[in-house]
Amino acid sequence: MNLIEQHASFGGTQSVFRHTSKTLNCDMTFGIFVPQHAEGTRLPVIYWLSGLTCTEQNFVTKAGAQAYAAEHGVIVVAPDTSPRGDDVADDPAYDLGKGAGFYLNATQAPWAAHFRMYDYIVDELPALIEANFPVSERRSIMGHSMGGHGAITIALKNPGRYRAVSAFSPIVAPSQVPWGEKAFAAYLGPDRETWKQYDATALLASATERLPILIDQGEADNFLAEQLKPEIFTAEAARHNHPVTLNLRLGYDHSYYFIASFIGTHIAHHANALKA
Amino acid sequence: MNLIEQHASFGGTQSVFRHTSKTLNCDMTFGIFVPQHAEGTRLPVIYWLSGLTCTEQNFVTKAGAQAYAAEHGVIVVAPDTSPRGDDVADDPAYDLGKGAGFYLNATQAPWAAHFRMYDYIVDELPALIEANFPVSERRSIMGHSMGGHGAITIALKNPGRYRAVSAFSPIVAPSQVPWGEKAFAAYLGPDRETWKQYDATALLASATERLPILIDQGEADNFLAEQLKPEIFTAEAARHNHPVTLNLRLGYDHSYYFIASFIGTHIAHHANALKA
Repeated sequence: MNLIEQHASFGGTQSVFRHTSKTLNCDMTFGIFVPQHAEGTRLPVIYWLSGLTCTEQNFVTKAGAQAYAAEHGVIVVAPDTSPRGDDVADDPAYDLGKGAGFYLNATQAPWAAHFRMYDYIVDELPALIEANFPVSERRSIMGHSMGGHGAITIALKNPGRYRAVSAFSPIVAPSQVPWGEKAFAAYLGPDRETWKQYDATALLASATERLPILIDQGEADNFLAEQLKPEIFTAEAARHNHPVTLNLRLGYDHSYYFIASFIGTHIAHHANALKA
Repeated sequence: MNLIEQHASFGGTQSVFRHTSKTLNCDMTFGIFVPQHAEGTRLPVIYWLSGLTCTEQNFVTKAGAQAYAAEHGVIVVAPDTSPRGDDVADDPAYDLGKGAGFYLNATQAPWAAHFRMYDYIVDELPALIEANFPVSERRSIMGHSMGGHGAITIALKNPGRYRAVSAFSPIVAPSQVPWGEKAFAAYLGPDRETWKQYDATALLASATERLPILIDQGEADNFLAEQLKPEIFTAEAARHNHPVTLNLRLGYDHSYYFIASFIGTHIAHHANALKA
C-alpha cells in the first residue's frame, strides 16, 4: 500500500493510497479520512461509493464530508469506481467500462477478467482497511447514483454486515432503466434473471434484514425521470414493509453541490447507527 | 452577463456567470453564492480572491464556503485570477500570465493590454455585482496565497471600502520573494519603487485605517519558508500598530483541504464585521 497524497483536514487526515487488488487484478486507489482520535481507539467506518465517471477524488475534494466525519468521529473510505489500467477493458461511452464498474462481478468477456467491484467492495477493501487503519468492525455504506445502487444492493445482500445504508440520487431499478440495462447486458449477459442479484428493487423481496434505507433525491435532477425512478423502489419497499425514507429536495440537481448540502445529515444518520 | 451554470446549494444558489470586462478587455467568469433570503432584502458580500493557477472553480467546488455563507446570510463572489482568451498574453510558467494576474494593473508590454486585475476587482466587478444581485454596500475581501496578497493589498489601499479582510497562506512581501519578484518585474518593470504600491508589507506604513487583518497559515505549507514569510509582515505590522492575527496551523499545507478546514472561522469573522 503506497501513500499517494495526504493532507491535514478538520483536525484529522485526508489521504489517498494505492494498492494492488487481487480481486480486480490491477492497482487501485482509495481515499480515506481519519479524524483526530485517541491513540489506540478504533473508529466506525463509512464506505462511500461514487457514481459514473468518478474516481475517489470527486468525493474527497467536493463533498465536504470531512467536517462531519471529524465532528462525529467516523472514518470515511472512498474507493475508485472501477478497475483501472492499460490492460483493463474499456468502452468509449462514459457509462460502461472504466469509471462505470456498477459494483458487480462481471461474468462476460471482455469484462470478467477485472470487473469484480462487488467482491472488492464487500471483501477485499474492508479487509485491507481493517488491517491497516484504526477502524472497528462497525461499518456502514453510502453512495451516489451508480454508487447509491452499489450501497443499497450491497447492504441488502449482506445482512448484518452494515449498520446503516443511505444514498444520494441512487439507481434503484437498474433492470428497468437505460444505464442499468446497458451495463448489466454487457457485464452479466442477456439473461435478465442474472440481473436480479444486483437490482435493489428486485432484492427487496428476499431481504432478511429490515435495515432502514435513507435516500435523498434532487427534484431538479436531470436523470430523475429516465434513470433513477425512485418511485419504483419505494413502491416495492412498501409492499415488503421495508423501511425507506425518501427525501425529495426541491431545486437540487445530480451534482456534488447537492451531495455537499445534505452529506451532513447522512453522516449524522450513519454515526447514530454506528454508535448505537 | 450570461449564466454558465447554476446549482441549488445549502438552501441557496451557487452560480457561475460570464461577462465582458471593459477593464480587462476580455470575457471573464465569476462564481457567486446567494443564500436563501427574503425577497427585497440586500445581503452583505464577501469577495474571495484565488491563488496561482486557479479559476473560479477551485473555490466554488472545494472550499465548502456555501455552508457557512448560508448560515450567516452572506453572498460570496469568487472571480477568476487573470484575464482570459486567445489574445491575452501568457507565459509557459504557472506563475506568470494567465492564472497569475496578481491583482495589479500591469504597465509593461505585453501585459498592460489586459492585465488590470486591480481595477477589475476594486471597481468593475463590484459595480456589476451591485447592479445585478441583491447585495448591500457592505463588502469584505479575503483570499488565498496570491489572492491573499490581493485581498490584503486591496483592503489597505481602499480605506473604508471593506469592513473585513482576511487571508489564507498569503503572499505578504512580494518584493522579497521569488513569486512576487518575477511577476512584479514582468508586470511593473524593473523599478522596485513601483512595486511598493502592491506590496502588503510596504503598504502598512501608509495605511490610514487600522482594519484588523486575519491570517491563517499552514505550518506544513511547502511555500511557507520561500514564498510566504508571514513573519516579515507581522513584524512590520507590529511597528505600525496595525492589528494582525496570524494563526499558524500545525500540520496543514497550502491546499484547499486547509482552506476548507478554516473557511468557517473566516466567514464568521467577516459576517460579524459585515453585520456590526
